Amino acid sequence: MFSLGNFLTLSTFGESHGIAYGGIITNFPAGLKVDFDEVQKQLDRRKPGQSSIVTQRKESDTVKFLSGIFEGKTTGTPIGFIIENENQKSKDYGHLENTFRPSHADFTYDQKFGFRDYRGGGRSSARETVNWVVAGSLAKQLLPENVEINAYVSSVGEIFCEKPYQDLDFSKTDSNEVRCPDSETAEKMISKIKEIRKEGNTIGGTITCVIKNLPAGIGEPVFGKLQAELAKAMMNINAAKGFEYGSGFCGAKMTGKEHNDLFNKDFSTKTNLSGGIQGGISNGMDIYFRVAFKPVATILRPQESFDKDGNPVILEGKGRHDPCVLPRAVPIVENLAAFVLADLFLINQLRKI
Amino acid sequence: MFSLGNFLTLSTFGESHGIAYGGIITNFPAGLKVDFDEVQKQLDRRKPGQSSIVTQRKESDTVKFLSGIFEGKTTGTPIGFIIENENQKSKDYGHLENTFRPSHADFTYDQKFGFRDYRGGGRSSARETVNWVVAGSLAKQLLPENVEINAYVSSVGEIFCEKPYQDLDFSKTDSNEVRCPDSETAEKMISKIKEIRKEGNTIGGTITCVIKNLPAGIGEPVFGKLQAELAKAMMNINAAKGFEYGSGFCGAKMTGKEHNDLFNKDFSTKTNLSGGIQGGISNGMDIYFRVAFKPVATILRPQESFDKDGNPVILEGKGRHDPCVLPRAVPIVENLAAFVLADLFLINQLRKI
Amino acid sequence: MFSLGNFLTLSTFGESHGIAYGGIITNFPAGLKVDFDEVQKQLDRRKPGQSSIVTQRKESDTVKFLSGIFEGKTTGTPIGFIIENENQKSKDYGHLENTFRPSHADFTYDQKFGFRDYRGGGRSSARETVNWVVAGSLAKQLLPENVEINAYVSSVGEIFCEKPYQDLDFSKTDSNEVRCPDSETAEKMISKIKEIRKEGNTIGGTITCVIKNLPAGIGEPVFGKLQAELAKAMMNINAAKGFEYGSGFCGAKMTGKEHNDLFNKDFSTKTNLSGGIQGGISNGMDIYFRVAFKPVATILRPQESFDKDGNPVILEGKGRHDPCVLPRAVPIVENLAAFVLADLFLINQLRKI
Amino acid sequence: MFSLGNFLTLSTFGESHGIAYGGIITNFPAGLKVDFDEVQKQLDRRKPGQSSIVTQRKESDTVKFLSGIFEGKTTGTPIGFIIENENQKSKDYGHLENTFRPSHADFTYDQKFGFRDYRGGGRSSARETVNWVVAGSLAKQLLPENVEINAYVSSVGEIFCEKPYQDLDFSKTDSNEVRCPDSETAEKMISKIKEIRKEGNTIGGTITCVIKNLPAGIGEPVFGKLQAELAKAMMNINAAKGFEYGSGFCGAKMTGKEHNDLFNKDFSTKTNLSGGIQGGISNGMDIYFRVAFKPVATILRPQESFDKDGNPVILEGKGRHDPCVLPRAVPIVENLAAFVLADLFLINQLRKI
Repeated sequence: MFSLGNFLTLSTFGESHGIAYGGIITNFPAGLKVDFDEVQKQLDRRKPGQSSIVTQRKESDTVKFLSGIFEGKTTGTPIGFIIENENQKSKDYGHLENTFRPSHADFTYDQKFGFRDYRGGGRSSARETVNWVVAGSLAKQLLPENVEINAYVSSVGEIFCEKPYQDLDFSKTDSNEVRCPDSETAEKMISKIKEIRKEGNTIGGTITCVIKNLPAGIGEPVFGKLQAELAKAMMNINAAKGFEYGSGFCGAKMTGKEHNDLFNKDFSTKTNLSGGIQGGISNGMDIYFRVAFKPVATILRPQESFDKDGNPVILEGKGRHDPCVLPRAVPIVENLAAFVLADLFLINQLRKI
Repeated sequence: MFSLGNFLTLSTFGESHGIAYGGIITNFPAGLKVDFDEVQKQLDRRKPGQSSIVTQRKESDTVKFLSGIFEGKTTGTPIGFIIENENQKSKDYGHLENTFRPSHADFTYDQKFGFRDYRGGGRSSARETVNWVVAGSLAKQLLPENVEINAYVSSVGEIFCEKPYQDLDFSKTDSNEVRCPDSETAEKMISKIKEIRKEGNTIGGTITCVIKNLPAGIGEPVFGKLQAELAKAMMNINAAKGFEYGSGFCGAKMTGKEHNDLFNKDFSTKTNLSGGIQGGISNGMDIYFRVAFKPVATILRPQESFDKDGNPVILEGKGRHDPCVLPRAVPIVENLAAFVLADLFLINQLRKI
Repeated sequence: MFSLGNFLTLSTFGESHGIAYGGIITNFPAGLKVDFDEVQKQLDRRKPGQSSIVTQRKESDTVKFLSGIFEGKTTGTPIGFIIENENQKSKDYGHLENTFRPSHADFTYDQKFGFRDYRGGGRSSARETVNWVVAGSLAKQLLPENVEINAYVSSVGEIFCEKPYQDLDFSKTDSNEVRCPDSETAEKMISKIKEIRKEGNTIGGTITCVIKNLPAGIGEPVFGKLQAELAKAMMNINAAKGFEYGSGFCGAKMTGKEHNDLFNKDFSTKTNLSGGIQGGISNGMDIYFRVAFKPVATILRPQESFDKDGNPVILEGKGRHDPCVLPRAVPIVENLAAFVLADLFLINQLRKI
Repeated sequence: MFSLGNFLTLSTFGESHGIAYGGIITNFPAGLKVDFDEVQKQLDRRKPGQSSIVTQRKESDTVKFLSGIFEGKTTGTPIGFIIENENQKSKDYGHLENTFRPSHADFTYDQKFGFRDYRGGGRSSARETVNWVVAGSLAKQLLPENVEINAYVSSVGEIFCEKPYQDLDFSKTDSNEVRCPDSETAEKMISKIKEIRKEGNTIGGTITCVIKNLPAGIGEPVFGKLQAELAKAMMNINAAKGFEYGSGFCGAKMTGKEHNDLFNKDFSTKTNLSGGIQGGISNGMDIYFRVAFKPVATILRPQESFDKDGNPVILEGKGRHDPCVLPRAVPIVENLAAFVLADLFLINQLRKI
């Protein structure tokens, strides 16, 4: 309950200013030679301090595997791991014990649990996503080697990457700080983020993710549809506000005649408004979806709020915060998607006698 | 696994042309005096044949409770129920055994399972939603009485209900065939659907759902965020292509300064771009979300396709199909949401000692 | 939660005097040609009225499959089934509404749920096991054909079958009313049960179950050990008081030197005190276990009890009750074991890449 | 899947010679002031090297809580913890890579996973129980304060504690090395274990556990019976071979007239052959059960075995092994039971509206 995955599962723990984050991956098959460099590479893509347009906090974000791997290979038993917290400045947060920051989870945690670990957002911190990147980058290694999962920043504020994904070269995604593979759009996005940062403000955006070469048959008929599992995973990301796949919200404006994907003789489809999924199950075409992210709630400007006793207070974010989470969210989206796919991929192996 | 809910769970079965649909609801608390009329009323809102703009199939859609209720009250033991299938014309489907309809699940089911019950879409039929309406309308009765869940058709094709939900009178939702509470917009939608139907075509749209008076504290911190549970449920609806809540995709264009919801002294918020959820947990404000639906894939016009052996065939939908699923999807969205909320509401009772 | 199985799962519902029992089996693989006769045969072995030493209630116990099977083959989608209740004499139970029968679940259900369906024990009735026989006899068909699961009555009261299971011919188990394959012991057991029945009394006993030809590798390392999954299933049977496997309670008296099973060159073992399981995982040798059943609580003799208000009452069971549940429990044990094995067998297929 | 508990859950990881053991406890309610000393006390009761009749390995077995506790109180978010491994002598095990020890899990792990971490039994080591003691001793703190859970060694080999549990003073259990509260019997057990150890042999035994003051209503009707949940937990302990509760295997010899527990006017029962559970649900009387443990498989004497290639080898356990696990298993049984009870206790709070 409240873990990720159905058969391949990830349970996690951790708070922003606790001792460590970590998790347990269960039902990971035995015999996989783990590519540890790939795991660390994905962590590095997510970590703070990697470029000028993200938070300048420093965390080494090194994962330590505690079990389930022997002589470099998975043993089939639970994989336990931790990522220690290093760069905590808990004192920065003392003033928040009795105060609720606007559009943060401070108030709702207090309502739910009666009190909260107020340091750095506690359990509500997006630092939790470090666990997902570890688990997702391992899970990715269970998928057929030719499965490609590529996410990129498709909009920042009002700046959109107008090119369809088919015209993009995903090998360029990491070539710029904002992780948009279209260099012209990337430049505009970067200037926008720098401008916003200068104002002490933050900005939202969208990430598009494209999955290629997933075999047909992945996903479950009713509860467990591939799009629903992806949506659930994505909507658990901290600032996510929306999810759409294939034609998405645009498809809602269309007619059946326009929207239906006619077959080719080899059962590929002439168009792909379905987004590679029919009846909740992959059909072998590209899967693509888009996730909307709101702007980060912590702004470096004074905001009015109240403390627990209802006294007015002025809050002002300080220090090391992201003006835009999108660039760091790209590996989160990719690796979460990988975990969801690996889970459903394993289950699909039991679908026929 | 592959049921709805985490503690309060719904497992279901059924195929379009099988003997019956049905389900089991587990962990439903004892002692609730069941409002059976309300359950049937919700089923009637979903059933085919109720108006001129939906399919003219006739199904009485009467639920039969088989267990878990004694002398009108829930006993705390599993609630089993069935809805018998009545109006099956399975012969209509014989030609589909070896043929794949475009943008249906025929091909993907065959890929996954090796063969399929091809009659009326089998397990992929949206008739499965009848189970959800039964379970959701029961679950609704577990929520505090003042919790209101109102869905309505907010767009059909390019016709949008421009008024914000706050300006709508939800008591009017069922006063017209399309279930849009704004009568002027409703009329336009109805004419559009009639026009589309005449062409043998179909059309998509969106449904907006508004939840009022849900107490603060509902939803879980990491996996199990309220928006993620809602998204998962909604994205399992058969034609759903997208989900957004609060500011949604629009929020992705905004800055933090614009988007943050400042508190009032009573911890209500001045704005509600958060959509009533912060950190995955309800804050007591209105929760609102929107679901995009693609146009129905079955159109009453010839379409090119292929049979299993790769021979070209011409398919043409016949008979009794919905030109637009939106009106019938309104109770599905409402009752699914009710189930999700009741599940998280129960769990929340165990969050403090 | 509170279903049987981990991947292959059975959820059930039903009360003794409700409309029907039933269940949903999920994650059953597609493509199995169902042997319906075998399912009914197992139901017939469990049903009341089949011999002179069991209850004379009449129930046809016919299962009706509602979904998940098409043209005789499983489709991979949930298998829903019901068994209608027929021979209810609910009026027999009216006097129990406010009274608690000794060693029944009347008092505990009232404590737990605030009230109960008092007719025939409601949900606490052993009639629930009809669901398990349906599911187990289907699950059995997923196991390799040479896997044999044979249970038999190994003791009734103080009468024990002294022969080790290796000396028994399981094809004789059903050749007598008590289901003990040793005909001499069977006769003694039958006379004992008849004598006990004449006194209006009841009697306990044990069932031994032997599983042959299960491949090595079935069962999970920590939580999910094969013996623990079997124990859980067996201890959910209504009158079960104890479970032991391999050397069992006798093994607790032994030394390591005596108890260790030395290997043969082919990795079979010279002895089998392990009972075919090492570290929670099958080793290819025979698995054998024993379940203890208490005597039925309903006796046809006056017993003192109290009603809800604490007034003394005299209760006397009437009519059609089992003097000894053991003969009818044999197919329950066998089919429950089959379900547990099939679940772990499927999961084991995902243990290596 | 393959965790402990249904709502309150424990997922674990760890191998004998890995870096650390650990686990995640989910759904633990917020607001409990943790008694850390009690947790460590329970760990100390389980740890090696505590007396002359158990293994002389030294492990400090110190638990480190990584999350879910803030300023000494549980926060309602997942509790992550680790216990680092310290005293590993992995070189002792190099010879086992290709050899299978009799009555260990070496062969079955290899069959299941294709290879194994052979050092100290890897995941099959009973050192895993350290995780359960941590989780159970926390869970115990969720139960009403007057709930008492007392386990003790009730037999070693053929030496039985003849006194019924009612005549024992549980405060004396820890007053001797073997943890039998009857000092006379304890002495005999201790001499027996010393004798056995001298021979390089090992010996089995039984543990009895008594639970007092558990409220009525705990446990679930069908799958989830209190005795089944206890049996499952206990049968997952490494050397467990049998479980019985209440009258247990003796009850199988009795008649209904002898076995039924008649009520007193206050709904306590005059006898308690039921063992405090009726219909799977606690009735407020003492719960008592017994677990059988086989002798430890590692003996310090030469045993014949085979390597992977079928070559005969002589194995001889060396060093620091338990001649009898019973004394150290007492806290394991108690704390596992506590976890099971706390899980069902929480769930029971949701059983009535």
